[in-house]
Amino acid sequence: MGDTFDRVETLREDPRDDIPMAHRMKRFVEALQIRITKKMDDIDDTTAFEVDQWDRDEGGGGITAVMENGEVFEKAGVNTSAVHGPLPDRMAQAFDVDAKPFFATGLSLVVHPRSPYVPTVHANFRYFALGDDLLDPDDQWFGGGADLTPYYPRLEDVQHFHRVWKEVCDRHDAVADYEEFKTECDEYFYLDHRNEARGVGGIFYDYLREDPEGTFFFTREAGRSFLRSYLPIVERRREEEWGERERRFQLIRRGRYVEFNLVYDRGTKFGLETDGRTESILMSLPPHVRWTYDHQPEPDSPEARVLWYFEPRDWLDLSSADVPTGTE
Amino acid sequence: MGDTFDRVETLREDPRDDIPMAHRMKRFVEALQIRITKKMDDIDDTTAFEVDQWDRDEGGGGITAVMENGEVFEKAGVNTSAVHGPLPDRMAQAFDVDAKPFFATGLSLVVHPRSPYVPTVHANFRYFALGDDLLDPDDQWFGGGADLTPYYPRLEDVQHFHRVWKEVCDRHDAVADYEEFKTECDEYFYLDHRNEARGVGGIFYDYLREDPEGTFFFTREAGRSFLRSYLPIVERRREEEWGERERRFQLIRRGRYVEFNLVYDRGTKFGLETDGRTESILMSLPPHVRWTYDHQPEPDSPEARVLWYFEPRDWLDLSSADVPTGTE
Repeated sequence: MGDTFDRVETLREDPRDDIPMAHRMKRFVEALQIRITKKMDDIDDTTAFEVDQWDRDEGGGGITAVMENGEVFEKAGVNTSAVHGPLPDRMAQAFDVDAKPFFATGLSLVVHPRSPYVPTVHANFRYFALGDDLLDPDDQWFGGGADLTPYYPRLEDVQHFHRVWKEVCDRHDAVADYEEFKTECDEYFYLDHRNEARGVGGIFYDYLREDPEGTFFFTREAGRSFLRSYLPIVERRREEEWGERERRFQLIRRGRYVEFNLVYDRGTKFGLETDGRTESILMSLPPHVRWTYDHQPEPDSPEARVLWYFEPRDWLDLSSADVPTGTE
Repeated sequence: MGDTFDRVETLREDPRDDIPMAHRMKRFVEALQIRITKKMDDIDDTTAFEVDQWDRDEGGGGITAVMENGEVFEKAGVNTSAVHGPLPDRMAQAFDVDAKPFFATGLSLVVHPRSPYVPTVHANFRYFALGDDLLDPDDQWFGGGADLTPYYPRLEDVQHFHRVWKEVCDRHDAVADYEEFKTECDEYFYLDHRNEARGVGGIFYDYLREDPEGTFFFTREAGRSFLRSYLPIVERRREEEWGERERRFQLIRRGRYVEFNLVYDRGTKFGLETDGRTESILMSLPPHVRWTYDHQPEPDSPEARVLWYFEPRDWLDLSSADVPTGTE
């Protein structure tokens, strides 16, 4: 942690105004993809990432890294892309901008662990630029975030995750605000038709246009903090024993994840509508899912108790006395 | 078949202009729900429909009948509803009409069999009216259809299904046109992001406004023809042996079904957006589903051969010589 921070500070001295932000961000997300996939490969030696490189007809392409059927990670995807060309009509409309050349790059990841006691996690870090000259774009912005979707949430895990993201935001408070980004996350990852949050949130931000240099440094530290936000939770929960009952609940809860991604998620909808690479977009979907009619956990069961977590709350202000028994 | 037809003809003599079409259609779909659920209960004696009656706060309600975990039918839902009240804004916008009282009733069903050799089927029959006086509505229309989604399609099954719907349309050619309704079905049940049809089609129609009396008789015969369009296929395929390989393919194909329903289906999206009853809307989702990254069947395998079917074709003009070996 210390060393990442030090390097960020050093780089801040050296803003490299001769290299477009587009290229710096592309290099950063590609390096981050290697760092994350390598570490996850080390953790689960029963499987390994398979890497697909793909090209986009209109310009650019991406690298899709997917791991399946691992003992720890049942399915995980860590994708990067860097695409450019004339702005598709559909995007011009969505962003309400004129048709002009665009450049977009980012990393997007989703991890679906096998154990119902290990949360699913999602994160992405994106940059978008418009105009003919990437060194002096007409418009540019960053977006991203990270959010956690546990099946059997535990307060200490939720707090660990949020604490990491709060620290990252606090260290970049000129461009990042944990309270604001947390609220945006709660609002974004919400299933109106279920009256439920997708999970326990995290941070989400978009259209950060002020101070690109500062936002890039924030983005770098956020990206590099992903592993420490998540892996300690994996390590803590992976050995806990589970059975058919917990598996069933996990598969039903994963149905909510699918519902969110296909019904609400802007990135997914947008990707599918703009002829994105379907397999890279839909790698976010869980490997096995169940839908059962009107599932209602038995009153006072562990499954009924954890529903308390699927409502936005100020996790960092809570103590173990505030949470349902057995979920501390 | 003969007797249904006779009864329809008799009723045509007796248009009952003292009873609103809204009420005749409601009574019809409720009777059809009983007929269909009873027959399906008889066919699969390892499970039974469970029936939920629900009320809508703003007026009306529905009856949701769901069967789960049967040996033949892994999950099936046969729902009716009849709702009324002030037209919700979201609907006024979608239909591009003024805010006024509305009435809507219909039956919607989805059957997900356990065997990968038995196709999934979907059908619905709907009526919508606008205005203060249901005996003389300002606007009214019918919509509906039936479509088949096999996992391992066989030409004879596909032809049987289409032949039934063509016969029904042909007998009501003043209001129904098989060629037109089949094309609408092919266009509607298509996954753009996969470049694939959801299944092998059937018929689909909407906004039938001319000749409500004739359209009601067509709708009645269509509704009553559902069982004979589908059950002979169930009977023919249910005893065929299958194993893990076929099951896996079925679960992956079911993923496409979920993608269609959550990304494209107007009824589903509309229901979720207008605060419909979530569990009744999402009963259409399959019980178990898999998503695996970039699934590609082995060349020349049965799974590769059947993909030929997921493209709109004039099924009734084909002979066994036209189809991939083993799928006749």
